[in-house]
Amino acid sequence: MTDDVQVIFTPSGKRGRVARGTPVLAAARKLGVDLDSVCGGRGICSKCQCSPGYGDFPKHGLHVDADALSPINSVEERYDRVRGLKPGRRLGCQAEIMGDVVIDVPPESQVHKQVVRKAASERVMEMDPATRACFIEVAEPDMHAPEGDFQRLAHALESQWGIAGLRADREMLRALQPVLRKGGWKVTVAVHDQGDGPRLTALYPGLRETSLYGIAIDLGSTTIAGHLVSLDDGRVLASAGQMNPQIRFGEDLMSRVSYVMMNPGGDVEMTQVVRDAMGELARELAGEAGIDTGEIVEATVVCNPVMHHLLLGIDPVELGQAPFALATSDSMDLPARELGFDAAPGARVYILPLIAGHVGADAAAVALSEAPESREDLSLIVDVGTNAEILLGNSTRVLACSSPTGPAFEGAQISSGQRAAPGAIERIEIDPETKEPRFKIIGSDLWSTDPDFGTPRITGICGSGIIEAVAEMRMAGIVDASGLIGSAAQVGSARCVPNGRTHEYLIHDASPDGPRITVTQGDIRAIQLAKSALYAGARLLMDEMGVDVVDRVVLAGAFGAHISPKHAMVLGMIPDAPLSAVSSAGNAAGTGARMALCSVKARRAIEAQVKRITKVETAIEPRFQEHFVAANALPHATAPFLELRKIAPLPYVSFNTGGSGDEGGGRRRRRRG
Amino acid sequence: MTDDVQVIFTPSGKRGRVARGTPVLAAARKLGVDLDSVCGGRGICSKCQCSPGYGDFPKHGLHVDADALSPINSVEERYDRVRGLKPGRRLGCQAEIMGDVVIDVPPESQVHKQVVRKAASERVMEMDPATRACFIEVAEPDMHAPEGDFQRLAHALESQWGIAGLRADREMLRALQPVLRKGGWKVTVAVHDQGDGPRLTALYPGLRETSLYGIAIDLGSTTIAGHLVSLDDGRVLASAGQMNPQIRFGEDLMSRVSYVMMNPGGDVEMTQVVRDAMGELARELAGEAGIDTGEIVEATVVCNPVMHHLLLGIDPVELGQAPFALATSDSMDLPARELGFDAAPGARVYILPLIAGHVGADAAAVALSEAPESREDLSLIVDVGTNAEILLGNSTRVLACSSPTGPAFEGAQISSGQRAAPGAIERIEIDPETKEPRFKIIGSDLWSTDPDFGTPRITGICGSGIIEAVAEMRMAGIVDASGLIGSAAQVGSARCVPNGRTHEYLIHDASPDGPRITVTQGDIRAIQLAKSALYAGARLLMDEMGVDVVDRVVLAGAFGAHISPKHAMVLGMIPDAPLSAVSSAGNAAGTGARMALCSVKARRAIEAQVKRITKVETAIEPRFQEHFVAANALPHATAPFLELRKIAPLPYVSFNTGGSGDEGGGRRRRRRG
Repeated sequence: MTDDVQVIFTPSGKRGRVARGTPVLAAARKLGVDLDSVCGGRGICSKCQCSPGYGDFPKHGLHVDADALSPINSVEERYDRVRGLKPGRRLGCQAEIMGDVVIDVPPESQVHKQVVRKAASERVMEMDPATRACFIEVAEPDMHAPEGDFQRLAHALESQWGIAGLRADREMLRALQPVLRKGGWKVTVAVHDQGDGPRLTALYPGLRETSLYGIAIDLGSTTIAGHLVSLDDGRVLASAGQMNPQIRFGEDLMSRVSYVMMNPGGDVEMTQVVRDAMGELARELAGEAGIDTGEIVEATVVCNPVMHHLLLGIDPVELGQAPFALATSDSMDLPARELGFDAAPGARVYILPLIAGHVGADAAAVALSEAPESREDLSLIVDVGTNAEILLGNSTRVLACSSPTGPAFEGAQISSGQRAAPGAIERIEIDPETKEPRFKIIGSDLWSTDPDFGTPRITGICGSGIIEAVAEMRMAGIVDASGLIGSAAQVGSARCVPNGRTHEYLIHDASPDGPRITVTQGDIRAIQLAKSALYAGARLLMDEMGVDVVDRVVLAGAFGAHISPKHAMVLGMIPDAPLSAVSSAGNAAGTGARMALCSVKARRAIEAQVKRITKVETAIEPRFQEHFVAANALPHATAPFLELRKIAPLPYVSFNTGGSGDEGGGRRRRRRG
Repeated sequence: MTDDVQVIFTPSGKRGRVARGTPVLAAARKLGVDLDSVCGGRGICSKCQCSPGYGDFPKHGLHVDADALSPINSVEERYDRVRGLKPGRRLGCQAEIMGDVVIDVPPESQVHKQVVRKAASERVMEMDPATRACFIEVAEPDMHAPEGDFQRLAHALESQWGIAGLRADREMLRALQPVLRKGGWKVTVAVHDQGDGPRLTALYPGLRETSLYGIAIDLGSTTIAGHLVSLDDGRVLASAGQMNPQIRFGEDLMSRVSYVMMNPGGDVEMTQVVRDAMGELARELAGEAGIDTGEIVEATVVCNPVMHHLLLGIDPVELGQAPFALATSDSMDLPARELGFDAAPGARVYILPLIAGHVGADAAAVALSEAPESREDLSLIVDVGTNAEILLGNSTRVLACSSPTGPAFEGAQISSGQRAAPGAIERIEIDPETKEPRFKIIGSDLWSTDPDFGTPRITGICGSGIIEAVAEMRMAGIVDASGLIGSAAQVGSARCVPNGRTHEYLIHDASPDGPRITVTQGDIRAIQLAKSALYAGARLLMDEMGVDVVDRVVLAGAFGAHISPKHAMVLGMIPDAPLSAVSSAGNAAGTGARMALCSVKARRAIEAQVKRITKVETAIEPRFQEHFVAANALPHATAPFLELRKIAPLPYVSFNTGGSGDEGGGRRRRRRG
């Protein structure tokens, strides 16, 4: 027997020689193998579980004897008895290497494990969290060496984990002393380090066995959505959403900026209400997941530039006028308490970088999630919301802009519009012959024409419902290419009823006991404005890229996930493309926020990528206005939309009688939203 | 003519060769010569003024021709016309070196100038401020390269000053945009760097020509004192003081800790009131100096550990019981706004390190100011206050402790005691024959026996007055060595009048229209308690050091400056020493705070020194109690005080009649305070 033995770790393939008797965990550390541990090798956290392999490994040229590891010891026996150890598993801190051995590290024992995302793109997400948990034993106070509790804690972290130079801010120092004493000088520290040195962010008495948590927040103009995520494995444990209470100061972003201009100090009010709402959301997420807010050690936030500045308490007026100067564009790392939400005392918030004055951290998050730069084919990524973020690019070059669509796509400023909630019409079909509609409401899987549909309460139309309604009206010949609704006589349906000097299409009439749900001429105009802005933004990027077609279109945004690609194309929301090339990426901004939450590498990646993205400012491009006007028609005044015509009828009708009816509403330029 | 020329800078003696035509400022930078500049060489700030020397310099082996520098140019002419340039002075950024030259940099053009302190020790203080002012021109916003205003500012600082990696916190980012626009993209930035990288702390439109300011705060249990200091040259521009409003929660520190123990949340209240008072003080200092609080870019704070924790919002209960564990002992650098006072948006506060659970940053500041480790002789430094900090040491070793003297030395808990304010008796003499007193009051230079003394309003006795009164009573035989006041018959003076079962000595009787000012037996007991604690602490350090005598005694503290050394020795406040060896250092803690404010080197020095100091905890040393009891007598029960007997009569009298009068009050142990 020689004094040292060979050890090979899988799946990393890392190998080397260690002294006989070395614990597996120590061997892993020596060889740079990613084997987790919270308790630091004390046999109590079980994070370092691994599976030795026995027998012949011709690939490695190795034979592993049955006694290659030391026998199961009392610590492992007790652990197995109390908590249960999977067959074949050993605790890496207890099992000592006695002979040549191959040791497999299962994914759950890796800190930097890879997690397959369930998104359309199926990309793999690597766990590389900024925060880790370390169990330490702190020296008790000594009057003859009267260093502070924090200094002794920092020494313990250095000597027991090799993490030197720990910092803590004032709030963390405030929280320190009771926890140290409650834990009997044995505590689990949450240590945050994203390359700027270790920082104490939370402290728990004794060994903390459950994972640490973070929240990823997508702070939109209209809604605030959040996910509570385990920093162990990236799992989403709770999701929640709230309306953005700033809506009362203005529906779209520009009206909020105007509010500040008209009301000095109005930014302070808006900052306060959005922070309150974020705090509420954090509490709601924690409650839903059954954890304490003090277990939230990190958060990431994505948002557009105006929300960004308002959240930080920066007056957004400069964003209301050219040259749309941001106060700061880089990513930020700041204490969670500065944004006023309940979390661990030293919890940190990471805010993704902004791309430009109108292209925010939400667009950066979409870029992180969808990574157009990682593909050879040309992707058009559209994040649909009150303000749309648009990315166009491939491995050569990525362009970005934002476009002020307004809130119509979210069902706002629509006569029968409402939030996506039970009772809202979300899908609709109109028979091209009879012009009769059938629909589905949120909360029921049945079409309204199904005998079992019953008489549920029907309350309005949500965003995806209005898109389908207008597109179906266009395909059924109820609306013409210019967006005009025909009269009952012109269309041949009693559902087209006069409404002032225009007409509206009746979908459902529950009066006098319920609402009368119609699509009005004003609704069509609102949708035309929104979709023209979206299309014009996409077209502007295509001009800049020098292309007339894209290889694929990705609809993103919480709402993008619900849009029917075919109907979106009938409206001309997006450039013409084969239906098979249009997909949904769900809430890509939210996904990007989660990726940044789980991985420091992802943060560095998007910070670098944002600097490479070519920024296009729609507000000052004359061509944007041209594209906008041409896009007013359904689907478009000049573009042929040949792919669309293969799959959807677009009957030629015209209801313009040359009279004084509504016209050209689409030519009013929307304000940014 | 060769292409390069020799340049020698005085007083640094730095020399080298530079290309002919190099501006003096550029040459200074190249050779590492400390030549100031705020405008970065634009000829507008005049900070880089220097004096060329002409003729023969045999010491340097150099002859300087009259045309060694380029002729005075239009920038210098205009500057001289508008502001005036001293004879022989040139602007270093304008004058170009055309031949071999010797250039003197006057002190006011050096950043790291040396300032002679007017303190007793006459040590030199070097200016090495953490914050400097830099004038920069920032690129205007560009929609096609939409970086934030802060990022463009940071680029400007890097390209124009070579300062890379600027950071700014949220408050600074909030303040950024209006100032940049007000200054037309030309601004003066205050950049703070104490070795941890540059940080933007303030921003002023255009070129800021006046200096930046800092405040040094000595936060005591009873009083809060502050100085407003120019960071250019260390000059004190304003001084102010306030009572510590925490007094209403307890006169001494331990009663404040008790308040927190009895009233959960009481620490929050105390934190708030002391921050309010500090904010008030900052405003008062700025008002007195005629500046805006936004011009305060830095502050330093020194304080005892309980005040330290309360200021930071850390519950101080651990400091109320052994082992007196500090939450943190290291120095701190944090945003001023976290302590709630008005200053520049990114202003920083530096808090000196704590030495031990009862030996605070105030003691560290005294150690910084008095630097006993820099001397061969053995210094005893006593900072007298409600809690006394005591240092003993020389170049070999320095020891520190604190001692709970209570507020008697500050005139509190004394029957006729009052703050040092006009009308208070501050000096007193008692004729040993007649036992008649004469005194001086604050606000008058005359003795009360002077015919011109008049009839001023006499309101009470201040701290130094009560010390002199008790010492004079001892020397006049009115009080015996045990501290008992004799009766009129025993003393032979009608001024000794009964007061219950003891006697009091009448100093001044203005009744019925004014106060009747006496020294009561209770007053003597309070002084005995205080001085015993002080002496016992000093003795304990001498035991630890293994010495019976010290070479010099330094009385520090705002109040220490007013104590008469002779009277202090009669009371036995300090160990026996030749009178000539006793000096006053004024407010040494405040001086230390100012030194730390003006110099990063001083911060690093005291941080290192604090780790070397040997900490002695009086609360758990049995010998402290022994020393305390023996020190109860006036001057001492056993120590001979031979030096004292050479200069002061200490008549043998004894008024103990064996009856039931007051006795042994000195044996009650005071609480810390």
